[in-house]
Amino acid sequence: MPPHNNTPLIGILGGMGPTAGLDLASKIILETCANLDQQHLPTVHLSIPENIPNRTDFLLGKTDVNPGIEIARQLKILDTVGVTVAAISCNTAHATPIFDEILRRLRQSELRIQLLHLIDETIRYVIENFPDLRNVGILGTMGTYRFRIYDDPLKAAGLIPVLPDKQIATEVLQDSIFNPIWGIKAVSNPITDRARELVHDSVQHLLGKGAEAVILGCTELPLAIDGPLQADSIVIDPTHVLARSLIRNSFPEKLRPVESLGSTTS
Amino acid sequence: MPPHNNTPLIGILGGMGPTAGLDLASKIILETCANLDQQHLPTVHLSIPENIPNRTDFLLGKTDVNPGIEIARQLKILDTVGVTVAAISCNTAHATPIFDEILRRLRQSELRIQLLHLIDETIRYVIENFPDLRNVGILGTMGTYRFRIYDDPLKAAGLIPVLPDKQIATEVLQDSIFNPIWGIKAVSNPITDRARELVHDSVQHLLGKGAEAVILGCTELPLAIDGPLQADSIVIDPTHVLARSLIRNSFPEKLRPVESLGSTTS
Repeated sequence: MPPHNNTPLIGILGGMGPTAGLDLASKIILETCANLDQQHLPTVHLSIPENIPNRTDFLLGKTDVNPGIEIARQLKILDTVGVTVAAISCNTAHATPIFDEILRRLRQSELRIQLLHLIDETIRYVIENFPDLRNVGILGTMGTYRFRIYDDPLKAAGLIPVLPDKQIATEVLQDSIFNPIWGIKAVSNPITDRARELVHDSVQHLLGKGAEAVILGCTELPLAIDGPLQADSIVIDPTHVLARSLIRNSFPEKLRPVESLGSTTS
Repeated sequence: MPPHNNTPLIGILGGMGPTAGLDLASKIILETCANLDQQHLPTVHLSIPENIPNRTDFLLGKTDVNPGIEIARQLKILDTVGVTVAAISCNTAHATPIFDEILRRLRQSELRIQLLHLIDETIRYVIENFPDLRNVGILGTMGTYRFRIYDDPLKAAGLIPVLPDKQIATEVLQDSIFNPIWGIKAVSNPITDRARELVHDSVQHLLGKGAEAVILGCTELPLAIDGPLQADSIVIDPTHVLARSLIRNSFPEKLRPVESLGSTTS
């Protein structure tokens, strides 16, 4: 029962975490040229997190259940209601062992849905908008680092990935995202001061290591950054990039003309 | 193809406006006891605003197309994917000429979906949580006032509705919500200072007329209020009430125990 025959319909596969899915939906609204309800874009947002295992746990071998199985099942629901273009609002879900499982299952089902790739869209955005960049910092989960989700495509594009020191990667960032008391997934409205400070410190850490730009490579991280960090830093928000890509692939005439995202240069 | 057989699934019929739908989704997350992605509640959020006419325009006779027709069609989509309990994040859509059309069409289709009623939930919340209240102010659209969406049920409950002066109702509030340059529907992230100030002024206006509490009776209005207005005022946010009602009707064991909403008493 497609809601709009022959009309594009945007799908958000959220729930990883739920607030990150809302962040993507919110950025679609922000990047749409509209001043009336009726001018906004048709969107279906699924947030059914219970049966999607933690992506990093799977990548680190802590669970055998591939999150891609449930993600593919939910993408089929989006297809059923007529979604034409969709995206998964989770960086770690784009690690090869998970994303390949998703693609394999979508092919089996012969879905028509166009699935955007968060990482590919972000790399393309960086190259097109910051052609002089060389050193690009990466913040993310342990799954993101272990499976080189951003490192490999950055290198393939001729850029140099800048990674955090081990303690930042294995403790500070993991805790900022997952700590059950004060982490972003546990408390997202508002983010705790502690999580916010640690994410900001981690960005500064990468800038201190020579990064000219920093990718917030986990969809929870942009929730902790709501303003410029310092006048000459470039912070790339993949969720914001993805919001614009979803619009460009559905209603390009509605995309806000100003490419205001990514750079926080004053 | 229900995603969870025999499992509750929450549906949000949003898009009226899109940011108000996100506000409801965000308040569901806020009111859920969870500190992991997997503990959050399964939610499907439709925001397909193009074919839903402005509710106030219909109620004032500016269009003949009843928004209830498209709202009912979208509720059927929610039913198709297995939604068990749903709500419409728009006060004005609960005016009798629209809501009766929705109910008539749902009955024809024999849908199993449980549809909560935003206004009934809000009135019940007021009575249960503020038993000593007498004078209750109402802010909303012209459609809300013309069809006495809150006035009649407040009176039926033995309470006295406090309405704004004509100029506030017909100009200030309408403009705050609908102005195409600076109104909340046109610019919601962030809300413009002008819209925010006018909404705050309207609350003060009703308090000045003797209201002991004020209902923000349009889902755009809570977007302009993000903190206590004054120490002894009670501001009722129907979106927040609705978020808790959706949880109570699906996963009551996950509802945050503290009834922190509604009152802004310091």
